[in-house]
Amino acid sequence: MTNNPKFAVFGGGSWATAIVKMLCENLDEVGWYMRSVYALEHLKKQQHNPNYLSSVEFNLEQLKLSNDINEMVEYADYLVFVIPSAFLHSELEKLTASLDDKVIFSAIKGIVPETSLIVGDHFNTHLNVPFNNIGVISGPCHAEEVALERLSYLTIASADDAKAKLVAKVLSSDYINCTTSDDVIGTEYAAMLKNIYAVAAGIAHGLGYGDNFQSVLMSNAIREMKKYVKKVHKMKRDINDSAYLGDLLVTGYSVFSRNRMFGNMIGKGYTVKSAQLEMSMIAEGYYATKSAYNLNQAKGKKKAKTPIITAVYDILYENKDPKKIFKKLSEKLD
Amino acid sequence: MTNNPKFAVFGGGSWATAIVKMLCENLDEVGWYMRSVYALEHLKKQQHNPNYLSSVEFNLEQLKLSNDINEMVEYADYLVFVIPSAFLHSELEKLTASLDDKVIFSAIKGIVPETSLIVGDHFNTHLNVPFNNIGVISGPCHAEEVALERLSYLTIASADDAKAKLVAKVLSSDYINCTTSDDVIGTEYAAMLKNIYAVAAGIAHGLGYGDNFQSVLMSNAIREMKKYVKKVHKMKRDINDSAYLGDLLVTGYSVFSRNRMFGNMIGKGYTVKSAQLEMSMIAEGYYATKSAYNLNQAKGKKKAKTPIITAVYDILYENKDPKKIFKKLSEKLD
Repeated sequence: MTNNPKFAVFGGGSWATAIVKMLCENLDEVGWYMRSVYALEHLKKQQHNPNYLSSVEFNLEQLKLSNDINEMVEYADYLVFVIPSAFLHSELEKLTASLDDKVIFSAIKGIVPETSLIVGDHFNTHLNVPFNNIGVISGPCHAEEVALERLSYLTIASADDAKAKLVAKVLSSDYINCTTSDDVIGTEYAAMLKNIYAVAAGIAHGLGYGDNFQSVLMSNAIREMKKYVKKVHKMKRDINDSAYLGDLLVTGYSVFSRNRMFGNMIGKGYTVKSAQLEMSMIAEGYYATKSAYNLNQAKGKKKAKTPIITAVYDILYENKDPKKIFKKLSEKLD
Repeated sequence: MTNNPKFAVFGGGSWATAIVKMLCENLDEVGWYMRSVYALEHLKKQQHNPNYLSSVEFNLEQLKLSNDINEMVEYADYLVFVIPSAFLHSELEKLTASLDDKVIFSAIKGIVPETSLIVGDHFNTHLNVPFNNIGVISGPCHAEEVALERLSYLTIASADDAKAKLVAKVLSSDYINCTTSDDVIGTEYAAMLKNIYAVAAGIAHGLGYGDNFQSVLMSNAIREMKKYVKKVHKMKRDINDSAYLGDLLVTGYSVFSRNRMFGNMIGKGYTVKSAQLEMSMIAEGYYATKSAYNLNQAKGKKKAKTPIITAVYDILYENKDPKKIFKKLSEKLD
């Protein structure tokens, strides 16, 4: 690896677009892989992503664009993955290029459904990337506000502090403040769990619960997250740091969150299927709920008490009545 | 005191009205003192408070109404004070009736400006009420949602657990869940500090900061609150319980919060004076800022690090430029 490692972003969604924008503030060249040939062609002609954050104009001279994932893996030293977790496995199956010596940062908030693993573990277990070459880019951060250059904070976590610092440096700018952390696993789980709590917030809203309940739900959610993450990876962490509590709040209180919107429809009486059809996409929190629930159950007697995750699981996967489940849940909250 | 102690609520605002409503769910008779003769007369004729939560209809046979504070103190065993902290001192100066054996619960979120004391300490120091007869009714709870009978949670704190339990019992109903606590001081300080953080959230919004920043601000605020409350009264508490974090969130994220609204105007460039004139009232957070700042400063080297409170103080009381102060603050947050 050279002194100036090359970066590439993998993904064509709003968060991928936001990360490319951040990197372009600091780097002469940024690799950008996206699957859609149409989006790439549009980008080349119109200088913006046609589907997401289309107000952000890119300087094409700064971008190395490709829809060949292997070409992009070979090009870069630092690979930033921002592909929705539901599609990550099938995208990675295209890989023939080696990941040896590549540094993988995940900005994906979710679990890989095929392996029930958080992204870092997936790269480690299935692609033999050592943990020292793995990191996480976490919020609290709506991509839309990055597009508007509104001051936002990121947490960059890696077991290798030097790599976290380097990524923090290339992402920082007038409107991005980065903190580093060595809690890769906790940060990734928190980013995953918060989507479930956002679904819960949405269900509550859809059922007619108000702001008072929402604040109690979030207060219980952060305590539940603390217990869950402690069971998964015990270490000294302040669960109220921005990467955990901040990320929970920006999602749980956002009316734009897809997870919250999905939950809201469920609370209003839509079936899972019809909510997904209506949204023409699947909320990360849907998969996260199943994975988080099963991972916890698998711990047997050592499992964490997670009444909120269980409630969402019962509604989404056991076809239980949201109204009754939330009535029961509300009696457990304090 | 009899087996069925009598309750009276002192105050005519929305939170007082909500508490009377809650008590009426359980008690045959509830005393209600308010200063305004006009409001009392209206209530007697129309069965609702003309100024606040006017959708809530009362059964007059359940209410013992008076605008004579001494008559009401003599009537009741449990006195629930819900008078804005800025007016408490002058109201209490009217007292000639004895407070001996009276149990005082405060539902006031603020500091008594004349004595710079939280309400419990004020009653203890200036009216000789022993701490065993003092308690706090705390949120997270918007009065407006109580009016709508939306499920809400209260925390009832007292050094005397039996008294906390009794108050919890008479306030509980289908739509009110109560938790008890022995952390009177922490709960009161948290209720006071959260108003300052709501002012800060408002200033940030007025200055154009977005949701990403807001979540980081709240994440820092709860950590700051933890440090502050620990300095004031060290005991084992989970700052993420609803009485602390929940209360912070319901205020900090509410667009209806008067403190947030006040901060928003300051952020938009109003002077303190013009914001107060425009709102035709004074936000609790305005006084709380000065008191919290001074109380902390008085601790000298033992003071807590409170960059957010200091920032709000500098803007409200030192006439500093909100934009510059928040730029500086944003560099301290993480």
